[in-house]
Amino acid sequence: MSLVRSQLSISLDGFVAGPNQSIENPLGEGGMRLHQWAFATASWRAQHGRAGGEQGADSDVVKEVTRGVGAYIMGRKMFGGGEGEWDPTWEGWWGEEPPFHAPVFVLTHRAREPLSMKGGTTFAFVTDGIDSALEQARAQAGDQDVAIAGGASAVRQYLRAGALDELYLHIVPVILGAGERLLEDMGDPTLGPIRVVASPAVTHVKYRVLH
Amino acid sequence: MSLVRSQLSISLDGFVAGPNQSIENPLGEGGMRLHQWAFATASWRAQHGRAGGEQGADSDVVKEVTRGVGAYIMGRKMFGGGEGEWDPTWEGWWGEEPPFHAPVFVLTHRAREPLSMKGGTTFAFVTDGIDSALEQARAQAGDQDVAIAGGASAVRQYLRAGALDELYLHIVPVILGAGERLLEDMGDPTLGPIRVVASPAVTHVKYRVLH
Repeated sequence: MSLVRSQLSISLDGFVAGPNQSIENPLGEGGMRLHQWAFATASWRAQHGRAGGEQGADSDVVKEVTRGVGAYIMGRKMFGGGEGEWDPTWEGWWGEEPPFHAPVFVLTHRAREPLSMKGGTTFAFVTDGIDSALEQARAQAGDQDVAIAGGASAVRQYLRAGALDELYLHIVPVILGAGERLLEDMGDPTLGPIRVVASPAVTHVKYRVLH
Repeated sequence: MSLVRSQLSISLDGFVAGPNQSIENPLGEGGMRLHQWAFATASWRAQHGRAGGEQGADSDVVKEVTRGVGAYIMGRKMFGGGEGEWDPTWEGWWGEEPPFHAPVFVLTHRAREPLSMKGGTTFAFVTDGIDSALEQARAQAGDQDVAIAGGASAVRQYLRAGALDELYLHIVPVILGAGERLLEDMGDPTLGPIRVVASPAVTHVKYRVLH
């Protein structure tokens, strides 16, 4: 049975982005600190066509979270929202060969033609809501899983709708003090930890959402 | 070298107590859910003179956090603040044989005589601030550690003052949605995970605070 899953780096005080997010600084002030652990890994570097990097538990987790994903869903800001969104030649933030290598469904209010990028990533723009996006993503993913890639708001919507099966949090020992929270206005979903991977940099905890 | 350490149960969304804390309900609405994992353990039950309970990782953690503690510091509300505080015969919330079995220093604004309880717990009331309490606790603890027992506000004060060496968080997969946060108005201390214990109920992560 194919799962709907999501994975996010989160600060110890619960933020997935720092304050004052903007087009120029989509992760907000200090938000990049949540992702340094991943950038340092050999797996992340390999996925982005670079050599080197650290082997170990964190690198294994980076590999694990991309394995078995047949389609992605993301919010418009994660695709490349803001001004550029209104430009039909704008192809998002991910460069000519995005790291997804799979169909990506972008939640947006503005219809546009799909994009085919190098390396097997396609972006399709879904204007009729999260259920429709999930249905389309499932159809493309087949036996594989659907990943809600982000941002936090997309993950929250699927979690709140009871559509998320797994939430994998990379708990980074950083205190941001302000920014965008993941688990806010969320109701009271029942979660159970099913996997914990510890490294000196991050504690990775995978939760099953019990429906 | 003796350490200053603290351990707290915290919800996945960062709360150490639920909303609407009161004398009748000091943990706030839903706050008790953060502690069920501990109550279920054999170690907790044994510390409170009861038989039975579950063995395993959580029980081991309960044992671990009390081991090697030579003195405690707590806020007045945790001792038994509120109305009772002004009653010189009020001996707090902990019963005639409190589970500390060690000297306890209570941060308060109201001087009162120390209390000697059954089982080796003494309560001394410190009116001249957190540094003084720590100094007195260290003197009593000798080679053993000083534990900041809580509540969250006392832990925050020591963390903010750079006086805390270890923070052991029991991350409970519960979303409270509101209540008292631990890591708020905290500045940006440097933390590193030094120990992770996983159970189906809780993820225990011990952080070293790097000064």
